[in-house]
Amino acid sequence: MPDNLADLIEELALANRILAHEGVLDAFGHVSVRHPTDPNRYLLSRSRSPLLIEPDDILEYRLDSEPVKRANVHLYAERVIHGCIYQERSDVAAVCHHHAPAVMPFCIASKPIAPVFHLGAAMGELAPFWDQHDEFGDTNLLVVKPEEGRSLARTLGQHSAVLMNRHGATVVGGSLKELVSRSIFMCQNAEYQLRAYALGGATPLHPGEVRLAGAISLLPNVVTRTWEYWTMRLAASGGMPPRRSAAKTRRRSTKARKRR
Amino acid sequence: MPDNLADLIEELALANRILAHEGVLDAFGHVSVRHPTDPNRYLLSRSRSPLLIEPDDILEYRLDSEPVKRANVHLYAERVIHGCIYQERSDVAAVCHHHAPAVMPFCIASKPIAPVFHLGAAMGELAPFWDQHDEFGDTNLLVVKPEEGRSLARTLGQHSAVLMNRHGATVVGGSLKELVSRSIFMCQNAEYQLRAYALGGATPLHPGEVRLAGAISLLPNVVTRTWEYWTMRLAASGGMPPRRSAAKTRRRSTKARKRR
Amino acid sequence: MPDNLADLIEELALANRILAHEGVLDAFGHVSVRHPTDPNRYLLSRSRSPLLIEPDDILEYRLDSEPVKRANVHLYAERVIHGCIYQERSDVAAVCHHHAPAVMPFCIASKPIAPVFHLGAAMGELAPFWDQHDEFGDTNLLVVKPEEGRSLARTLGQHSAVLMNRHGATVVGGSLKELVSRSIFMCQNAEYQLRAYALGGATPLHPGEVRLAGAISLLPNVVTRTWEYWTMRLAASGGMPPRRSAAKTRRRSTKARKRR
Amino acid sequence: MPDNLADLIEELALANRILAHEGVLDAFGHVSVRHPTDPNRYLLSRSRSPLLIEPDDILEYRLDSEPVKRANVHLYAERVIHGCIYQERSDVAAVCHHHAPAVMPFCIASKPIAPVFHLGAAMGELAPFWDQHDEFGDTNLLVVKPEEGRSLARTLGQHSAVLMNRHGATVVGGSLKELVSRSIFMCQNAEYQLRAYALGGATPLHPGEVRLAGAISLLPNVVTRTWEYWTMRLAASGGMPPRRSAAKTRRRSTKARKRR
Repeated sequence: MPDNLADLIEELALANRILAHEGVLDAFGHVSVRHPTDPNRYLLSRSRSPLLIEPDDILEYRLDSEPVKRANVHLYAERVIHGCIYQERSDVAAVCHHHAPAVMPFCIASKPIAPVFHLGAAMGELAPFWDQHDEFGDTNLLVVKPEEGRSLARTLGQHSAVLMNRHGATVVGGSLKELVSRSIFMCQNAEYQLRAYALGGATPLHPGEVRLAGAISLLPNVVTRTWEYWTMRLAASGGMPPRRSAAKTRRRSTKARKRR
Repeated sequence: MPDNLADLIEELALANRILAHEGVLDAFGHVSVRHPTDPNRYLLSRSRSPLLIEPDDILEYRLDSEPVKRANVHLYAERVIHGCIYQERSDVAAVCHHHAPAVMPFCIASKPIAPVFHLGAAMGELAPFWDQHDEFGDTNLLVVKPEEGRSLARTLGQHSAVLMNRHGATVVGGSLKELVSRSIFMCQNAEYQLRAYALGGATPLHPGEVRLAGAISLLPNVVTRTWEYWTMRLAASGGMPPRRSAAKTRRRSTKARKRR
Repeated sequence: MPDNLADLIEELALANRILAHEGVLDAFGHVSVRHPTDPNRYLLSRSRSPLLIEPDDILEYRLDSEPVKRANVHLYAERVIHGCIYQERSDVAAVCHHHAPAVMPFCIASKPIAPVFHLGAAMGELAPFWDQHDEFGDTNLLVVKPEEGRSLARTLGQHSAVLMNRHGATVVGGSLKELVSRSIFMCQNAEYQLRAYALGGATPLHPGEVRLAGAISLLPNVVTRTWEYWTMRLAASGGMPPRRSAAKTRRRSTKARKRR
Repeated sequence: MPDNLADLIEELALANRILAHEGVLDAFGHVSVRHPTDPNRYLLSRSRSPLLIEPDDILEYRLDSEPVKRANVHLYAERVIHGCIYQERSDVAAVCHHHAPAVMPFCIASKPIAPVFHLGAAMGELAPFWDQHDEFGDTNLLVVKPEEGRSLARTLGQHSAVLMNRHGATVVGGSLKELVSRSIFMCQNAEYQLRAYALGGATPLHPGEVRLAGAISLLPNVVTRTWEYWTMRLAASGGMPPRRSAAKTRRRSTKARKRR
């Protein structure tokens, strides 16, 4: 992950767009990353649909989810999800909250998602359920109050993802790229798992397989391949890579070509 | 909602295209809005597929669904749906009739759609069923006669949507933007609900949650985000925003940028 | 339907592309139309995927499915389907044979498709099944021999469509536009019917409704709307309307605008 | 299949992109072809997503899956799949390993894919299952060690495809074009089979039908049609045909037009 702030902001804008283009995010959902030099801050867009986010939309927040500088723009209502998780989990460098169509049926049926193919192991063996109604009664289901965010973070615990009943999912990662892979593969896993039920049932990976296969998506071999693929698919979809990072991507791939 | 007639006509053309692009409307279906200054009129396109509608296609109708000015063009056969609802419901400012693939299985299986995720609450707790055959026997299922339109409006009652057996759905809103959000989120809700059954069953929102979450899609925060997203997706899909409103959209977003 | 041969050939090329773009045809499937002045001939492309067919690809065939002029190109192996139906059914002006993903599960499960929504009534109340194995034992399932084509035509009888077990469907129409609408709406119907089963069951239209709603897709109102919609969707998908007809479409729509 | 090395490399790059565009391959999966003049070598890309592969990415490998020339690039971790199959099966000229969404539910539910429509017969009557855990216990499920590759090749035996539990599928062909057709039709078959279960059950082809219909996709008539279709679809999807072969395709189709 870039330790330079400007580069990280560009990577975050690109991560937003990739996750939107791959069907994890839609009009809603958001992705944040911890500040590269100040662990008590995180970076997150102003309130905007992820497919459209540009580096200029990214703001700095404190861990209480208040913006570092007052900004005259709409903010995401649910940003405490990010702040509360960064407070609880010093190992987490990136957070994604989403309502992907692939996971929604599981959140509605209260049926666990279990890793059923090797790449699905990126989500770990278990994603716990969190039902906002259990602790807070009738709400509009948005995670807006600090105590709601803390409760969600507690249920997440040391897991890589948490399913939110009648709402969506929140996924965490040790880096932005780990988060992007985990979010995408967890959605594919859910999709295949649901369809396997139509064939009579889904056999999950053996626990030992989950441990070993969980690391696949972090192999340098694999990260290079997936990141190039998702970036190019986004670009081919109609020219919506974030403004500044487009130039960087070009420069980087020219270098890569020379290196070969 | 714009109170200027020309602006509202543009917004209506755009609403048609957004709903078509998001999979609510196809070759069929139509969207109307009440006249901004004369509550005894409404605005609706000539007979044309919603994805193609331009401001020039929009006509004014009286509440008996006859055009205010004679026009030498095809009209939608089912426009009484709109007129009859505007007569019954003074609180309704916009109406959409559609056959979205997401709701059709429910209209065919006579299975109720229930809000199963927070955004789905935009449809309210219940959408009643209306079966044209109950009152009118064998027909071609088109709602063409004033008495058919009135019967449908009666079943709609004070609800936000009504499902029409073996035919489709009709959705209403207090504004065009509310209608667009409600129509899209109700389709997503139906899609997730159907898929949740494949996992063993769908748990609907608690009634109190429906009341509270039903207002999410009207938050200024949210309306800005969804409208920008749907408009940009439409534009990116191959340049089919309505002619005049494209220029306005550009002007408006320039202003927005300056304001930040 | 144009009675001019050149215009009809263009309409046939466009019908091929529309049906391919709407998901009825893929690499395979074919559409023919009876010759406008000689009922003992029909028009059909050389062997080519329907999405790519241009007017120059269209050949004339006799009703024994031999080309009128020897041509040094590949011909469709299954063209007897067309010739045998034109021989049996003087009322039929157009034939489409396809393997649409929407109908395949029904052809594989031997489950009847029944009209479950108003537009689905375009297929009529019943589409019989034809199993090539019943009469001909083990074959490669292609309908190649005249006796196979005649057997299929006999099972079609006076219906509008016939389902072919483990193979696909064949649909007929009184005009090219009727055929295109019927083929598309029958696929939508199958899609909705399959999904309604996931909700507990599909209630078909009342027989009287099928008779009355079956005529909707031929209303001038509706034909104008659907044909414009499907043509524009095809054009927007990446510029693949057949060469010569693109110019005509432009001319025609200019005229239409003037008329308003 | 071209016996000229440069032409075959272009065809391999194009095969990668076609299979990616038709939904068989995604960020992962790979396709190889045996060397046209040295049966002890095969051609396979460096580690890269198939949609992006260009002729320059293709490397030569020995049958022990080591590159003939040292290259300073990432290699696919699972290339032993290819080498081990070429060693066991002298009749095999091309190999594809993939995780297509259509086959994944079958690999997860351990439910056999059976040919249920005429084109599906391209896969042969039976695709055996191979579970890496049976012989190797807990692994990350990647086929990386020579003994894993040999075990997979043994289970494949004389079949045309093998399903890998909780992982994916491996398909072989007597030529690149046969492999591409077989892979695509097997995925369509799986898709239709799964959906037929939702209707009550899938009736497979009679064994004699499988034998006869299995040859359809190799008819010159059919190969010409499918290859043109898949190539044009790829080109229309946003200009991603491999660099050099694009020129060749143009030249070839000009020739074809002159011949008519």
